[in-house]
Amino acid sequence: MKAEIIAIGSELLTPHRVDTNSLFLTERLNRLGIEVTRKVVVGDRREHLAGSFREALERVELVMAMGGLGPTEDDLTREALCDVLGRKLIPHDGVMRAIEERFRRFARPMAENNRKQALVPEGASVLENQRGTAPGLWLEEGGRIVVLLPGPPNELQAMWPQAEQRLERLGAVRGGVRLYSRELRVAGMPESEAERRVAPIYTQYAGAQTTILASPGEVQLHLRVWSADPPAAAAMLNEMAERMALALGESLFTRAGESLEEVVANALNAQGATVAVAESCTAGLVAERLTRLGGSSTYFLGGVVCYSNELKSSLVDVPPELIEVKGAVSAEVAVALAQGIRRRAGATLGVGITGIAGPGGGSAEKPVGLVHIALSNGAATKERRFHFPGDRERVRWQASQLALDMIRRYFLFAGQEGKK
Amino acid sequence: MKAEIIAIGSELLTPHRVDTNSLFLTERLNRLGIEVTRKVVVGDRREHLAGSFREALERVELVMAMGGLGPTEDDLTREALCDVLGRKLIPHDGVMRAIEERFRRFARPMAENNRKQALVPEGASVLENQRGTAPGLWLEEGGRIVVLLPGPPNELQAMWPQAEQRLERLGAVRGGVRLYSRELRVAGMPESEAERRVAPIYTQYAGAQTTILASPGEVQLHLRVWSADPPAAAAMLNEMAERMALALGESLFTRAGESLEEVVANALNAQGATVAVAESCTAGLVAERLTRLGGSSTYFLGGVVCYSNELKSSLVDVPPELIEVKGAVSAEVAVALAQGIRRRAGATLGVGITGIAGPGGGSAEKPVGLVHIALSNGAATKERRFHFPGDRERVRWQASQLALDMIRRYFLFAGQEGKK
Repeated sequence: MKAEIIAIGSELLTPHRVDTNSLFLTERLNRLGIEVTRKVVVGDRREHLAGSFREALERVELVMAMGGLGPTEDDLTREALCDVLGRKLIPHDGVMRAIEERFRRFARPMAENNRKQALVPEGASVLENQRGTAPGLWLEEGGRIVVLLPGPPNELQAMWPQAEQRLERLGAVRGGVRLYSRELRVAGMPESEAERRVAPIYTQYAGAQTTILASPGEVQLHLRVWSADPPAAAAMLNEMAERMALALGESLFTRAGESLEEVVANALNAQGATVAVAESCTAGLVAERLTRLGGSSTYFLGGVVCYSNELKSSLVDVPPELIEVKGAVSAEVAVALAQGIRRRAGATLGVGITGIAGPGGGSAEKPVGLVHIALSNGAATKERRFHFPGDRERVRWQASQLALDMIRRYFLFAGQEGKK
Repeated sequence: MKAEIIAIGSELLTPHRVDTNSLFLTERLNRLGIEVTRKVVVGDRREHLAGSFREALERVELVMAMGGLGPTEDDLTREALCDVLGRKLIPHDGVMRAIEERFRRFARPMAENNRKQALVPEGASVLENQRGTAPGLWLEEGGRIVVLLPGPPNELQAMWPQAEQRLERLGAVRGGVRLYSRELRVAGMPESEAERRVAPIYTQYAGAQTTILASPGEVQLHLRVWSADPPAAAAMLNEMAERMALALGESLFTRAGESLEEVVANALNAQGATVAVAESCTAGLVAERLTRLGGSSTYFLGGVVCYSNELKSSLVDVPPELIEVKGAVSAEVAVALAQGIRRRAGATLGVGITGIAGPGGGSAEKPVGLVHIALSNGAATKERRFHFPGDRERVRWQASQLALDMIRRYFLFAGQEGKK
């Protein structure tokens, strides 16, 4: 089965917004064995929308469209689809009740235009939206399927299982060719080095597609195999992943597409360890990333964002003389921050970060991008010095990435470290 | 003049890659007065490519396509366009020489398939590529223009001025119609409420397009006018923005597309005020956002991420009895956090945040999404209770948004507050 995705919204035709919903949908459709053959972004003009639906329905069996289901005047997705299918919009009692209930629950007055969202094309099935007022819609016409989903990613993603269930029930998906994939991720290794190490491996597997994707401080390797034979696909992917893991060494942090946050959380939980952070240039980013997962209070105790020198001393016990002699951005202050926050919080590990995120504040000796990161377990403190390229945001992100990676690597070598 | 953009490459139909070239092209085209009415992503299949060119040429005068100009077998953009235009591919001496020269310069052997890149459609003009081997191509057919550019962003961007010069020379752009825009942003008001207030205004301006865009805790209003008369366009946009500002009241935080972070930074700087934050559920996100701009150390002193109750007491002086009696998530603890961090940091303003981000930790009395935010200036402390919808990430983001907005509103009403 082949699908096309239509992302709807005039804002997606400005220089300011990019459609990312289609990435989520592609991943989920591929898993079901459905290939995405085209993606279209179109604005909120009824005739443009209708044209896009018409063209897509001429080509493929499944059209996934998202956006333009809101309460405002420029939300015209339902109307345009009705134009193409020759159907009417009719009020749907269940949807109206759900919208009213939602406004009651959050004790907000309902605007009159929200009633528009309860209009659905004749014959459409409703996909419930637990996170917003715009329902999803499922329509069938002459053996073709159109699925309309709301544009906000959290609503679309929460609603996906309802669409998936219906797709799985269909004969078209039954054919058995599915997409199997692995995702390896690497921290602290440049893309060109990762490529150099894995290219001799993936070029030996003609049946698999390998895509290498780099973001600051991270390289992702996506291995994909379309197959009707699950054990054979799994065997090929396992073999490739195993060989690549050997080639990449300890920089590899997952073969299962986990985020660095997840891997660090699992390592801390497995050891029953806790962590606290003292951040200067990253200013809360490491704390925020360490707490992205629910239940993070089991391993994360807290932290200090010590932008001013006074707070470095008063909240994390960095001696003012040390700051004066070595400078706030120095290996010694990073070490003192790590040790100080560990002690103050009573944590297993303390992390200290100080650096120059830019654009100002750099000098010949201490340029923009210079960051010191320290990790202390009480018995020993490891300190590393980095010089990150890029702008303020990129420097801060890379620093947070390497701080998380130092925690991860600590547990890889926890045995050896203890002997120091 | 209207344009469509076609991004070509099977990797853009995977879950891992997003087309960003079109953002660059849209921005540059808009500046020339060219509107982008559709964007298409299509894989490297000749018939799919040809179909995309055919459809686009039926609709618009300018088709910008990028990608698929490389030397490999799956680079079929030129071939597909020739299918549609009924032209032949012929060798181009200048391009061949440029490719040979490039390989000589980098002392690399030229693969035989690079010769393919010297084939150009009959009648095409060549846009030189200084950064790679794939030349850009400019074709005209029956008053329509097709521009082919290479996919790598650095090559495409370096080549853009050649395409721009040709577009500027055209009668179509000569008309002088350009895009003028304003962006208004609102915090702490639901999209439907913002829409209710501004719809009676923008519906009176047929010459302007208004797009309403909502993200958690923020609504953006994009006003766009295509005009050949700059003063008239500015007058219309100013009038619309002025009327909308009155309708939106104090929830409006910018008419110039600034971020909430920028507006808060400007307010703090204008008053010579400083701020410090004590965060529980947002865990550093408010500190991180307050420091996204360079130079933030003039107004941001620091903060504490007090996930554990112990740190709430030891670092921010929240009385343990208060936490025991009222609970860590309570108005009283938010107030104590704001007052405590203000005092500890010696800041003008202290912000305290405590809440339940979820997914666990909620109860009937204190559900997931409940967040208390307090703002203290020493003389007085304001506390607000919110119940945010959505998942953990969304709850945390909305809490950070409302915390920043409370700082912004404080300065709107700083006069009155002082009298309390």
